[in-house]
Amino acid sequence: MASKSEKPWAGRFRQATNPEVEKFTASIHFDCRLYRHDIEGSIAHARMLRRQGLLSKEEMEAIVKGLQKIRAEIEAGTFEFRLEDEDIHMAIEKALIAKIGKVGAKLHTGRSRNDQIALDMRLYLREEIEKTRDLLLAFRSTLKHLAQREMDTIIPGYTHLQKAQPVLLAHFFLAYDAMFARDEERLREAYQRVNVMPLGAGALAGSGLPLDREYVAKLLNFPRVSENSMDTVADRDFVVEFIFVASLIMMHLSRLSEDLIIWSTGEFDYLRIEDSFATGSSLMPQKKNPDVAELVRGKTGRVYGHLMAILTVLKGLPMTYNRDLQEDKEALFDVVDTLKASLSIVSTLLKHVDFNRERMEEEANKGFITATDLVEYLVIKGVPFRDAHEIVGKVVAYCLEKEKTFSDLTLREFKKFHPSFGPDVREILSARESVRRKKTIGGTSPERVKEQLRK
Amino acid sequence: MASKSEKPWAGRFRQATNPEVEKFTASIHFDCRLYRHDIEGSIAHARMLRRQGLLSKEEMEAIVKGLQKIRAEIEAGTFEFRLEDEDIHMAIEKALIAKIGKVGAKLHTGRSRNDQIALDMRLYLREEIEKTRDLLLAFRSTLKHLAQREMDTIIPGYTHLQKAQPVLLAHFFLAYDAMFARDEERLREAYQRVNVMPLGAGALAGSGLPLDREYVAKLLNFPRVSENSMDTVADRDFVVEFIFVASLIMMHLSRLSEDLIIWSTGEFDYLRIEDSFATGSSLMPQKKNPDVAELVRGKTGRVYGHLMAILTVLKGLPMTYNRDLQEDKEALFDVVDTLKASLSIVSTLLKHVDFNRERMEEEANKGFITATDLVEYLVIKGVPFRDAHEIVGKVVAYCLEKEKTFSDLTLREFKKFHPSFGPDVREILSARESVRRKKTIGGTSPERVKEQLRK
Amino acid sequence: MASKSEKPWAGRFRQATNPEVEKFTASIHFDCRLYRHDIEGSIAHARMLRRQGLLSKEEMEAIVKGLQKIRAEIEAGTFEFRLEDEDIHMAIEKALIAKIGKVGAKLHTGRSRNDQIALDMRLYLREEIEKTRDLLLAFRSTLKHLAQREMDTIIPGYTHLQKAQPVLLAHFFLAYDAMFARDEERLREAYQRVNVMPLGAGALAGSGLPLDREYVAKLLNFPRVSENSMDTVADRDFVVEFIFVASLIMMHLSRLSEDLIIWSTGEFDYLRIEDSFATGSSLMPQKKNPDVAELVRGKTGRVYGHLMAILTVLKGLPMTYNRDLQEDKEALFDVVDTLKASLSIVSTLLKHVDFNRERMEEEANKGFITATDLVEYLVIKGVPFRDAHEIVGKVVAYCLEKEKTFSDLTLREFKKFHPSFGPDVREILSARESVRRKKTIGGTSPERVKEQLRK
Amino acid sequence: MASKSEKPWAGRFRQATNPEVEKFTASIHFDCRLYRHDIEGSIAHARMLRRQGLLSKEEMEAIVKGLQKIRAEIEAGTFEFRLEDEDIHMAIEKALIAKIGKVGAKLHTGRSRNDQIALDMRLYLREEIEKTRDLLLAFRSTLKHLAQREMDTIIPGYTHLQKAQPVLLAHFFLAYDAMFARDEERLREAYQRVNVMPLGAGALAGSGLPLDREYVAKLLNFPRVSENSMDTVADRDFVVEFIFVASLIMMHLSRLSEDLIIWSTGEFDYLRIEDSFATGSSLMPQKKNPDVAELVRGKTGRVYGHLMAILTVLKGLPMTYNRDLQEDKEALFDVVDTLKASLSIVSTLLKHVDFNRERMEEEANKGFITATDLVEYLVIKGVPFRDAHEIVGKVVAYCLEKEKTFSDLTLREFKKFHPSFGPDVREILSARESVRRKKTIGGTSPERVKEQLRK
Repeated sequence: MASKSEKPWAGRFRQATNPEVEKFTASIHFDCRLYRHDIEGSIAHARMLRRQGLLSKEEMEAIVKGLQKIRAEIEAGTFEFRLEDEDIHMAIEKALIAKIGKVGAKLHTGRSRNDQIALDMRLYLREEIEKTRDLLLAFRSTLKHLAQREMDTIIPGYTHLQKAQPVLLAHFFLAYDAMFARDEERLREAYQRVNVMPLGAGALAGSGLPLDREYVAKLLNFPRVSENSMDTVADRDFVVEFIFVASLIMMHLSRLSEDLIIWSTGEFDYLRIEDSFATGSSLMPQKKNPDVAELVRGKTGRVYGHLMAILTVLKGLPMTYNRDLQEDKEALFDVVDTLKASLSIVSTLLKHVDFNRERMEEEANKGFITATDLVEYLVIKGVPFRDAHEIVGKVVAYCLEKEKTFSDLTLREFKKFHPSFGPDVREILSARESVRRKKTIGGTSPERVKEQLRK
Repeated sequence: MASKSEKPWAGRFRQATNPEVEKFTASIHFDCRLYRHDIEGSIAHARMLRRQGLLSKEEMEAIVKGLQKIRAEIEAGTFEFRLEDEDIHMAIEKALIAKIGKVGAKLHTGRSRNDQIALDMRLYLREEIEKTRDLLLAFRSTLKHLAQREMDTIIPGYTHLQKAQPVLLAHFFLAYDAMFARDEERLREAYQRVNVMPLGAGALAGSGLPLDREYVAKLLNFPRVSENSMDTVADRDFVVEFIFVASLIMMHLSRLSEDLIIWSTGEFDYLRIEDSFATGSSLMPQKKNPDVAELVRGKTGRVYGHLMAILTVLKGLPMTYNRDLQEDKEALFDVVDTLKASLSIVSTLLKHVDFNRERMEEEANKGFITATDLVEYLVIKGVPFRDAHEIVGKVVAYCLEKEKTFSDLTLREFKKFHPSFGPDVREILSARESVRRKKTIGGTSPERVKEQLRK
Repeated sequence: MASKSEKPWAGRFRQATNPEVEKFTASIHFDCRLYRHDIEGSIAHARMLRRQGLLSKEEMEAIVKGLQKIRAEIEAGTFEFRLEDEDIHMAIEKALIAKIGKVGAKLHTGRSRNDQIALDMRLYLREEIEKTRDLLLAFRSTLKHLAQREMDTIIPGYTHLQKAQPVLLAHFFLAYDAMFARDEERLREAYQRVNVMPLGAGALAGSGLPLDREYVAKLLNFPRVSENSMDTVADRDFVVEFIFVASLIMMHLSRLSEDLIIWSTGEFDYLRIEDSFATGSSLMPQKKNPDVAELVRGKTGRVYGHLMAILTVLKGLPMTYNRDLQEDKEALFDVVDTLKASLSIVSTLLKHVDFNRERMEEEANKGFITATDLVEYLVIKGVPFRDAHEIVGKVVAYCLEKEKTFSDLTLREFKKFHPSFGPDVREILSARESVRRKKTIGGTSPERVKEQLRK
Repeated sequence: MASKSEKPWAGRFRQATNPEVEKFTASIHFDCRLYRHDIEGSIAHARMLRRQGLLSKEEMEAIVKGLQKIRAEIEAGTFEFRLEDEDIHMAIEKALIAKIGKVGAKLHTGRSRNDQIALDMRLYLREEIEKTRDLLLAFRSTLKHLAQREMDTIIPGYTHLQKAQPVLLAHFFLAYDAMFARDEERLREAYQRVNVMPLGAGALAGSGLPLDREYVAKLLNFPRVSENSMDTVADRDFVVEFIFVASLIMMHLSRLSEDLIIWSTGEFDYLRIEDSFATGSSLMPQKKNPDVAELVRGKTGRVYGHLMAILTVLKGLPMTYNRDLQEDKEALFDVVDTLKASLSIVSTLLKHVDFNRERMEEEANKGFITATDLVEYLVIKGVPFRDAHEIVGKVVAYCLEKEKTFSDLTLREFKKFHPSFGPDVREILSARESVRRKKTIGGTSPERVKEQLRK
């Protein structure tokens, strides 16, 4: 059990912390993950204190060396984290004092855990956003690579999960690329708001000591310092915003996963996942399941949940720092891990999928999928759009009744529905031709898709 | 790297599982928590297989002994969980075969991981609901004990966080007890729906082997078996429902926490948390913060988040089992841990709080808090309610202007507002008298509060 | 603009309410929906006041008649709701006074809007839960009727959206019935907690007037009165709980919708929705979309959203009533409407779907779907389960390579995999036979499904 | 009842739409709100069709005039919206044909409702973001105005709702301004992603007609057109993103509301809300409640709920358009209304609040609030920070025991704790002096606060 005197803040306290309280409030078991950022921040802080005359050169050097040693120990796995150290800040400060003596007690000069944790979190998240962006870029490369490869593959495009119009498989991949391009933009913007130096805000009011916040910012490579000390320690917007962008990315991944899952059914049979990327059943020997895509879809809920959690935590919280804010970390860490793993594995998965191109094109020629082309055919011949739509609707109804497809119809039969139908109607009935004609910007014709790919 | 042949389901697979896939899909690092329930279920399953002639007596005994040994090893910390074992079921089955040879390969007869995990989860949750209920009952005892102790303590009751009417502190505690009483009821009802035996549903269709599901239910002390095999493996309602009840409990705890936090401000000064239950600041030596209450309030967001997560996971999931369901476990485990820790610590915290009874009663006599009693006084004298309300409103406005309280007013002044005011008006102006008069069922008069306590 | 004196609570106020405030805080535009319950409650309250001597017989009768007239006017559409009346309670009270004079000012005797709105909400929700249960029962009848009709229809059962084992279509419907049976139970339990009489709790403390709460309960057909006045006005658990049960029901409906949407694709082609239950496209004449199922799936998000909204509102709210609680109503009303409409339309939709039985059975014979039956065949012949699983896995791999199905294999080929295969292996290869054999309780064999249906 | 032939898409349908389906799927009762944007988009579309030779000049002019007339009728309230018109697009198209005959049937040429609704939503949201930004800017002006006014007002700053360090009230307002400045940035960025022209994407594939998308963009003042037609109709990111930014704004407002609510309690008594901005109680005549702030806090839940709703709707939705997307509109509309009303009313509320400056400064001198200044005093004298913290902690404990404040202590008493205390210690004990000394960038000293204000 922790004795009263061990707590560095316990001067005014006459009782030791109750062990259940200690356990309940401790964050060391998860915020130890921030050790590297905490030490990096402390080193910059110490250098600044030295520059401002609040530490001597020797003191500063002793502190920096001590911190580096602690970092090495943590990385070597020889550092012992103890519950009664509360959090990563206290654990490191106590270890520092144990290692270099009294002078370690000067490190926290002009600093509060409130601004210190804000710094650690921002250093951590800055780094993780960079990694996430790299993964996102890699994923987008995969999508573009696939788009390039499948520039000639025709698939049925769906609305309402019903065949709508044929499109290029390349176009499908570029649709996802467009979503992730927006997400990348959002990540970049969120990054700007993370990349602000909070240290020096103190507990909430700033400091009465002559701290040089801009020097710390420079050492830690922050382009600017935060502008209001109360806001600085109360603010977790940057955490929420990142989790939101992660939620959007997961949402987009969940849609892609759903497409992959549906396409890998025996009934669609549009793709086969390689054996190394599927898993089997403990009971049914024939099973090969798209587990990766299902799990990614499921993990979307997990990330949404963390978004709701942190929003709830912040709702109605009075100014400024409140202990509720400690709940931001586990959520954030889990989002970072989930997001990175999901981006990485879906990107790899896509490389281990074999598309059944023949079957897709075959299906893209079914289901009256070129009916809209017939409408446009009539429109060009001068039939008002809404009438053309109704005429083709009747052709479809006729075919359904006679169990025919458009291609089975004679010109004579076509002409019964409208005199404008001519022999050239045959030319527009194939999926491939339909795709070729979608030449509006952003449309699925090969030249437009190539244009997208170039951008 | 796992070689292909190691996977017990890999007969049809021609490639080994990709290591990234293995890592992404593994659940062993968290579902190992279910080892005890998995083994308990497997032992019951083996006994049933023996009874039905699907295992010999010797086979069954070898299996049971093997499983018991594995359990002992896990509890001794000598069992090695490996990522490539995927999940707790496979880890134990493989260890069993390694230990007792070929016969271990018979354990999974007539079983799928789909019904097996449903069993493990239900055994686990059944146990945890029991523990949660015990904690809830203990917490309610604390509340009732405090109510008993504070039967004579007057506090201002609030609406809109503005003083409304005086009430007994006992009444306040019993208000919370009433909320937790409903939650206990909900837990009990949720338990009934958890307490259903799923094994025998197989992958989704039931089994072609002569399994005796009711015997397994009897061995594991389930009052009934599930009625539809497809539903059995697709269903996670029982998880969602428990997390919902946990959300309500946390919500109630968050309200109590908010009250405690506000009451412990210097401005309210209604209570002091003992030093052992508060924590300090790394920077500000005077600080003593109600961290426990703040964290409980914050953890409410965490539990809400898990609720939203699991609801999102289940939304639009096709029948029956999908791998998305794996995401239920970490959420559930975290809810169980958070809820138990929160219930326990708030209960203990309440025992380490000193109420500032004098100050509370003093405040309960401020702010025209007995204005409603004045209205009722006039109503009894025959003034229509709405008029009485307006008259007393004007008395309040008059007092505000003159900077007086009700007690400062002379009878003459009272009479200027309405002739019905008589000398007996003085009798009703104290908070204590106001409380005494609230004799409707459920009201705050001492006899009614005692009545509540007895129930 | 409302003048100061118009507000029935404005005695102490020296300024009229700002019109923007009036608009922002008004609830009359949505809580007018509660007019019937508000009047019903007021009539019971007036009768009780009379019984307790707080109103004369004539006063009570004037009030009751006045209220009945107001109800008639509202129902006739001749009653004018005005924003400055704030809420339904004030609107009706003011109309009453306008209609019957001074005596109307006595109606609010011993009552606060805090307990009044609790009463209105409980009366409203009690009624709506009854209607919801009727719709749920009707829907379950539809499911059971379909189960009866499709007792002979074989479909492929899915896990991971991959064919797993054949099941009866009846079994599929009964799986959903099992979910909704649990939801019905939950509704019934939630109802018990709604069905509690709150009036008499006053603003928060009870009343100093001699009110008879039990008499009001009797008049309004409530089996019990609330036990703690503070809890009574602070509590919105009953709203949250109903919205949660609604969320579960919507979740179950979203799963069914997903199944219907997937089954109605051209690729699955398991069902056709009748023209009257599908909609078309403004552009593509061939389209027939399962809009109803899609919208129900989408509306699940809406109900989840309301759950999160109300949970957020309640988080960290101090005791007792706070104006935030006003936000419960629009959410609740929308949940009630959405839930009832969704239950009703899915039930009707199911009656307008034609199942493609031939195609389903055909598909149920594909994809090595009886592989598990082969395993069980070997197990019965004494092969350890895990070995049997692997052997059949290899048979599947062999078939895939040779592009054969199980039925294409000669006994000789079978025997190459294991000597236990005998000529009787042929008997178990059909989907229909597979279904027949699933005789465990809750399994999909016809007799078991009939048993479920009987329950 | 709608007859079959009335539906403009019903060519292939052989049954009329079922009335319950019609009612369930209709959106006209809420999307009628988009009439202005729908017409604006249609006019641009018609002009483009003319330019591309798909309409004659006369046809175009007839269409434009017809649309303008319809707009005038809607605005005059003489246009009848009917449920069987399904949605705003169909309602207007049908009215147009009724008005101008056959030629109206040409308007939908090259267009689908999928891209049309995307256009309407983007036009609507673009406008609403502009309005929201204006409100946000006005609100920030209020905050800055208050900061200017309260540059000399000292308040206690809080962490954990416990007095921490004194700050300027101006600093407090600027802390909120900093939050809303970030939100404004986010709105601006979201706007860029809304401001993209979707028309021409057709149903999902683009169009086979020679449409000029860039010309439409120019007419409607969009800087760019969407790049992938499938993404264009599947995408609702822009809706989610706006609702997220709204959630952050509401969260910030909820925190400010909480501060105002707590400060307006009788116990804090830091502010009084003017009578015109508060409301009373139907029962308790003395009550004056901060309803506006409470409602804003409550409405935060509402906006969070809509965020969760739309995220849930989008989760796992297959490509491209699905009817689930219809659920975006009511959520978005309600968020827009709630956000604008909340921003506006809180801004006005702040102008109707009287701060109790004397009491705030008095409280800012209580509670050992300058303890940190004492620590800094010692640090400057060379005492290591952690020791200084402990020393001052002991001074606090001593004062608590002796029931003294820092100012009550003699120099002799100070010196007992550490010899470095000198007579100058008295200079730093006032809140005002404490504030003056917080000169780090972003700190609460008057010059730093003025600096913030200038930015």
